[in-house]
Amino acid sequence: MTTLDRPATRTHDEDQVRQLIADQLAAIAAKDLDRLIPLYAADAVMYDVKPPYQTAGAAAWRAMWEQCLPYFPDGCRLETRDLHVHVGGELATAHWLFRITDVPADHPAGQTWMRSTAAYRKLRGRWVIAHEHASVPFDPLTGRAAFTLDP
Amino acid sequence: MTTLDRPATRTHDEDQVRQLIADQLAAIAAKDLDRLIPLYAADAVMYDVKPPYQTAGAAAWRAMWEQCLPYFPDGCRLETRDLHVHVGGELATAHWLFRITDVPADHPAGQTWMRSTAAYRKLRGRWVIAHEHASVPFDPLTGRAAFTLDP
Repeated sequence: MTTLDRPATRTHDEDQVRQLIADQLAAIAAKDLDRLIPLYAADAVMYDVKPPYQTAGAAAWRAMWEQCLPYFPDGCRLETRDLHVHVGGELATAHWLFRITDVPADHPAGQTWMRSTAAYRKLRGRWVIAHEHASVPFDPLTGRAAFTLDP
Repeated sequence: MTTLDRPATRTHDEDQVRQLIADQLAAIAAKDLDRLIPLYAADAVMYDVKPPYQTAGAAAWRAMWEQCLPYFPDGCRLETRDLHVHVGGELATAHWLFRITDVPADHPAGQTWMRSTAAYRKLRGRWVIAHEHASVPFDPLTGRAAFTLDP
């Protein structure tokens, strides 16, 4: 398993996937959809933290973000933890925990860690996001999202 | 993108991953942990529908299932939808929607669809589950799991 703890085993492809993740998080924090959306395959399928259950295609994903951005905090940063990246040929996967930081203390966006899993494809020499799944666990006894500040 | 709609493009590896998913779902429905747990890599990391945020290792995953099985319905079946499988060398990914069927109408386990994303590694010629992420989206306005019968 290749983790942040083992830089010596990284390949050029793994470095490119890690850079893609860094670019994606920076584009979200900057609310820059013209940088964010080209990182996705045109036919990417996303499972988001909030409804709907799935969003198919980069165009629909852009429309979701356009609707959501007014509620997103300005000047924030995305902090990650426990990032794992694996590359196999023209396919790669990654998973990590993340949270939104540098937001006003009472802003709902900064209240919890989330989990992210992604799949990548190399298309004409460039890695793109083919699938993404972000979530918060829920407590089956209460039906509520099980937020935590220390996962 | 290889889907259930394109059987002609399937490879032997993809067939093996699809069989692994079928074996996993059958083992869960049968509550058979001796069949289920060997399908995972020893160092697999799981993001479950419910807390905790992450579970590291097949042994800890078995302990989670042992605690959870008494609440799991008997004689159920796991129904899937929109299954996508991709293979690249010694790595594979899959994502799909699923729900638990053939349970009493008032059993909480049968009330919703869920989403699943998984990553697989080929170890000594055999595909195993390296990572799994299952979730229900949550409604940020209410903080409640956004259950649905028709995703």
